[in-house]
Amino acid sequence: MSARIHYKNLGKSGLRVSMVGLGTWVTFGAQTSDETAEEILTLAYESGINFFDTAEVYAAGKAEIVLGNILQKKQWRRSSYIVSSKIYWGGKAETEKGLSRKHIIEGLKGSLERLQLEYVDIVFANKPDVHTPMEETVRAFTHVINQGWAMYWGTSRWSPTDIMEAYSVARQFNLIPPVAEQTEYHLFQREKVELQMPELYHKIGIGTVIWSPLASGILTGKYDDGIPIHSRAALKGYSWLKDKILSEEGRRQQGKLREVAEVADRIGCSLSQLAIAWCLKNENVNCVLLGASNVDQLYENIQAVQVGWVNQLYENIQAVQVGWVGWGGASNVDQLYENIQAVQYISKLTPNIMHELDRLLGNKPKANRRDNVSR
Amino acid sequence: MSARIHYKNLGKSGLRVSMVGLGTWVTFGAQTSDETAEEILTLAYESGINFFDTAEVYAAGKAEIVLGNILQKKQWRRSSYIVSSKIYWGGKAETEKGLSRKHIIEGLKGSLERLQLEYVDIVFANKPDVHTPMEETVRAFTHVINQGWAMYWGTSRWSPTDIMEAYSVARQFNLIPPVAEQTEYHLFQREKVELQMPELYHKIGIGTVIWSPLASGILTGKYDDGIPIHSRAALKGYSWLKDKILSEEGRRQQGKLREVAEVADRIGCSLSQLAIAWCLKNENVNCVLLGASNVDQLYENIQAVQVGWVNQLYENIQAVQVGWVGWGGASNVDQLYENIQAVQYISKLTPNIMHELDRLLGNKPKANRRDNVSR
Amino acid sequence: MSARIHYKNLGKSGLRVSMVGLGTWVTFGAQTSDETAEEILTLAYESGINFFDTAEVYAAGKAEIVLGNILQKKQWRRSSYIVSSKIYWGGKAETEKGLSRKHIIEGLKGSLERLQLEYVDIVFANKPDVHTPMEETVRAFTHVINQGWAMYWGTSRWSPTDIMEAYSVARQFNLIPPVAEQTEYHLFQREKVELQMPELYHKIGIGTVIWSPLASGILTGKYDDGIPIHSRAALKGYSWLKDKILSEEGRRQQGKLREVAEVADRIGCSLSQLAIAWCLKNENVNCVLLGASNVDQLYENIQAVQVGWVNQLYENIQAVQVGWVGWGGASNVDQLYENIQAVQYISKLTPNIMHELDRLLGNKPKANRRDNVSR
Amino acid sequence: MSARIHYKNLGKSGLRVSMVGLGTWVTFGAQTSDETAEEILTLAYESGINFFDTAEVYAAGKAEIVLGNILQKKQWRRSSYIVSSKIYWGGKAETEKGLSRKHIIEGLKGSLERLQLEYVDIVFANKPDVHTPMEETVRAFTHVINQGWAMYWGTSRWSPTDIMEAYSVARQFNLIPPVAEQTEYHLFQREKVELQMPELYHKIGIGTVIWSPLASGILTGKYDDGIPIHSRAALKGYSWLKDKILSEEGRRQQGKLREVAEVADRIGCSLSQLAIAWCLKNENVNCVLLGASNVDQLYENIQAVQVGWVNQLYENIQAVQVGWVGWGGASNVDQLYENIQAVQYISKLTPNIMHELDRLLGNKPKANRRDNVSR
Repeated sequence: MSARIHYKNLGKSGLRVSMVGLGTWVTFGAQTSDETAEEILTLAYESGINFFDTAEVYAAGKAEIVLGNILQKKQWRRSSYIVSSKIYWGGKAETEKGLSRKHIIEGLKGSLERLQLEYVDIVFANKPDVHTPMEETVRAFTHVINQGWAMYWGTSRWSPTDIMEAYSVARQFNLIPPVAEQTEYHLFQREKVELQMPELYHKIGIGTVIWSPLASGILTGKYDDGIPIHSRAALKGYSWLKDKILSEEGRRQQGKLREVAEVADRIGCSLSQLAIAWCLKNENVNCVLLGASNVDQLYENIQAVQVGWVNQLYENIQAVQVGWVGWGGASNVDQLYENIQAVQYISKLTPNIMHELDRLLGNKPKANRRDNVSR
Repeated sequence: MSARIHYKNLGKSGLRVSMVGLGTWVTFGAQTSDETAEEILTLAYESGINFFDTAEVYAAGKAEIVLGNILQKKQWRRSSYIVSSKIYWGGKAETEKGLSRKHIIEGLKGSLERLQLEYVDIVFANKPDVHTPMEETVRAFTHVINQGWAMYWGTSRWSPTDIMEAYSVARQFNLIPPVAEQTEYHLFQREKVELQMPELYHKIGIGTVIWSPLASGILTGKYDDGIPIHSRAALKGYSWLKDKILSEEGRRQQGKLREVAEVADRIGCSLSQLAIAWCLKNENVNCVLLGASNVDQLYENIQAVQVGWVNQLYENIQAVQVGWVGWGGASNVDQLYENIQAVQYISKLTPNIMHELDRLLGNKPKANRRDNVSR
Repeated sequence: MSARIHYKNLGKSGLRVSMVGLGTWVTFGAQTSDETAEEILTLAYESGINFFDTAEVYAAGKAEIVLGNILQKKQWRRSSYIVSSKIYWGGKAETEKGLSRKHIIEGLKGSLERLQLEYVDIVFANKPDVHTPMEETVRAFTHVINQGWAMYWGTSRWSPTDIMEAYSVARQFNLIPPVAEQTEYHLFQREKVELQMPELYHKIGIGTVIWSPLASGILTGKYDDGIPIHSRAALKGYSWLKDKILSEEGRRQQGKLREVAEVADRIGCSLSQLAIAWCLKNENVNCVLLGASNVDQLYENIQAVQVGWVNQLYENIQAVQVGWVGWGGASNVDQLYENIQAVQYISKLTPNIMHELDRLLGNKPKANRRDNVSR
Repeated sequence: MSARIHYKNLGKSGLRVSMVGLGTWVTFGAQTSDETAEEILTLAYESGINFFDTAEVYAAGKAEIVLGNILQKKQWRRSSYIVSSKIYWGGKAETEKGLSRKHIIEGLKGSLERLQLEYVDIVFANKPDVHTPMEETVRAFTHVINQGWAMYWGTSRWSPTDIMEAYSVARQFNLIPPVAEQTEYHLFQREKVELQMPELYHKIGIGTVIWSPLASGILTGKYDDGIPIHSRAALKGYSWLKDKILSEEGRRQQGKLREVAEVADRIGCSLSQLAIAWCLKNENVNCVLLGASNVDQLYENIQAVQVGWVNQLYENIQAVQVGWVGWGGASNVDQLYENIQAVQYISKLTPNIMHELDRLLGNKPKANRRDNVSR
């Protein structure tokens, strides 16, 4: 077996995260049975993935329970993996939401109980809370870190200005600043990650963890002919996704996707693999969170790492410091995929292919053209 | 005469600026004769405009000289108006550019000498300088304020993250934070002012001064049939503007402009007036800088204030704090415009008209739609 | 029995360490049986040595286990001795190395478990980590001290600039600065301890603990005729030591060593004793860590203290504050050495002998000669 | 004429200094007549050199007087050049030396008077003062900057630990940290600039200005046959230089120099030019201060810039941001040198030549070899 995961520091922190992480949204405690969840987590861990992401809100806490049970059963060394959870929506009561001191502390305690852990590695604010003063939120995250309930804190879906405000408050009051932002990034949503996150990294060391590399499944191509009955867009509570797919913009994107699929064919990988590899090519991205509702899906997606990593290696001067872990066990499912000669498409996401994709998508973000005019 | 200028605080600072200011870019010391410049400045001042904006780079310092000479001649009370200048491009020597301590201090001293002033009210950084540490820049602006050479400092064409960094450094080292950002804003460039500046205002009190409300003249409609020989786009050094107008995107915009012009007709004002009034309707905007190469042009544009202000009054809860000054003198030029029944189109830029414009332009910025989904 | 250990403050901290400490590198859990380890530790403790140094990486954690078991068995008062461990290489997983917050916390917890201790007295960073921000590292050491898991923190093999950076970050953010640096020092490696550590002591109170006073055994003279089969240089993983000894520079050093051995003869002590006594003569050194793979070796080396201490007493104005503890028990092994009239060579490491050694070695570090020229 | 000076930021400050600067030590007010001094300064300025360095102690203040008179006469724009002076030895009285608040303030005022300037750009501490607390020194430099008498402050001949202490004190008390260190660097003295300054640059942004690129003239080869009667080593007060040259080490260096001269021959430049170009190849060096006792000497040395700059351009990714100024006037002296086809040796200081020089000199500094051993 040849796939390998490599590792990066999360932002400018000292935490080493695998370049792909495992998300538990929609799957653990919901779409996926507990047995399958265990298979998925095991494949991930044995493949060298060390970052498992969850949230208090996922499946109303059940995602954390399922993840906690598996970790408890497996007894992997606590220091060998990273668990993150997210706080914002904890319950129905008025005081069980948002980023107040009360909810950050109570919410995280609830997560730790469900996870059966003494601490998470990263606690994320699941979204900004305009009704709580930033000082209160930053003080509360600093508090839970000082209590030993978390190692680091981060943000999710915050604007660059929100993040800079948190940093500024941390500096002003000598509190602990955040280390990373979780944000959406895929072929059809590029601006924040490509234009704004690098600035945040260079100025204050914020790392980038991305979710939805497949645009909630849109980039798998499965909505090419409409909404399949068992797909996520058909789930209760996902009507926004259905609407998005069926919108004019959605149809336009399906058209582009067909062209992208041809590029994938040419390289010899699936559309999903290309979409994930494309995210990994962006050196500002520290970690791509993959979801999987079954082992085969995860397996296929891990292959994407191979599409990206060699170029990454050449392009990124820091890559020399990278460590490696080998593939773990080889289940039957794995053998099913042995024929896939992943090596064939390694390094095929060349600058030329990348430019072709940019042209095809027509959405490469650009900074204001007149920056050097002496107005 | 019925036109009235009203005033707003610049950001959350205590400085009261007229909602329209007078810019001197391209005009003073360049396109415009010194006599005309004096007429324009006089009309502006007498109309209640209290904010005159220039820069060390405009006409290589001549804009400041012309402005300084007029102020010297007129002998208006120094306390009755606001002068701002901008520092970045001061001279050809390697040390005469950028936002180093050396250039901020020497550049501002040069400006004060040319302006024959003891101090400016606001000194702006004309663009960000990635090669100078933010700490040095913020310390230098704080220094010139402490020396009494400026009352406030601001930024121009900085990203929200740049501005937040300046704020953060100011808070960390107990220095003086900036009060306002100068930025481009018009019918065809909306995102920064509509999405990002409000956040900066609410979080750290940054005000918004806008330039180019007519998109370098594009929104006057004068490029409808190409590039007129005496227009700005025909000037040496403005080939970027010519290219922009003649590009595919430029032609597409001209098409939209024709439709916008119909709306203006319907309301009963000129295209320029509508464009300026449209900027003023945005309550995040503290001041719109108008340029004028002759008095008529300025006069026409000041009328736009009337289109906008009444709605503003109703909509803006802060309007109760607003003060007024009457029209100043009524020159012959003024009488030329008496037929314009400004009152007729006051309050005609209704919510309906605004929505129609949004639909027509198709570029209303929107934040990520999924912000409230509990991912 | 006449040998005596005396004590010094560790840097400008209040912690009183014996001038010789016991290192466990290469020996405990590796070269040395558990029984011998116990004998050695017992001799050390009973001789007045109160400082036992280990690291999570030594023998992959076994050194800590052996040390912990002996301490558990012996039941000496916890307050009567000092245990230090070092964090950097904790395990094979990507997150089990370096000076990230995660690894400092998890690594130290692991050490405490293996040592069966509630806290160590000093936790050292085993080497600098250029990939983790200094702020994160200093915050994490402050955290573990605030949790009660360590009393002090220190550095090992850090450059003076690294140490000053840690100090600077601690002062800037009101965190706890380090108290001591562990560093290599012996007849053939002098510069850092003789030129740089005094500056760090005087400026910020950093103490100096030295290891390898015998240059990994080179200064015992045992490599005079090549690499003996049971020596450390013959061990797996020590090829760097073998290469060093057999290099041109290594052979040159062996030549000098023969001359140094003649000086030792003249004084009447062994080469090792002279080498250790020479380290102790340097008053900037707070503690010399000795390793020993058997009791005799330790015993011989402790004698070295006698060679040095009396002169020290006369020379060091702080010596009036020095406390003493007497020899502990006298085992048979001790009696074996009674013939050694340690008194004979006390005070023989005179200024003349020291100068002779300097001339012989030809490596006395010197600061730039022109420091007082008024360039 | 083809020589060009390029510019670099001084450390991480925003100040743009020419890569060669003009020193006035030994020359202005001493060896050199006022007329020659003016010729030299004029050639330097017109060649694009923008950095003139002096000190209160040089020729007991006369160097500053000569420099001030020339600047006064020439009337170049103050913003187009950089003047630095150094404080330490100001007079014979007990209170006229060192880095006390009293002497920094009084010393700098004296310098400004002699220079007939309102401010210097950089005020350097000419050496460390162990008898004044660092806090007093840093507060005093911050004070003179806040008074407008200097733009920046720096250090000269300070150890890395001294510099880090100044930085630490600045951060602790919110004072202004230094921007650059002036230090000796040439073929025979490498360690500080090659090993320690990069660390200071990366951690706290300190720049490196170097003096004595020709080792007080030793690297011109003029002492090859002893001490010529009119050389600097024959001057009163330079017996230390004479001693150095005639020492055993000095003679050994003369031997190496003969070999280096052969390399220079091969490249087609003089020994001095090679020595200066070699300094400029080190990308940690921001500025090399050249002295000159006549115009021809300066002219020859400026040529060295050509030897170095093209490689520099290729190797340094930041070089793309570099601006250029052309040669100024062409005096008769210049024409004398037109035959020197400087272009012939551009880019001849290749990696191979650099390695040959390293081998030849045998003094390339190296960091401790065992940094990655898990002791």
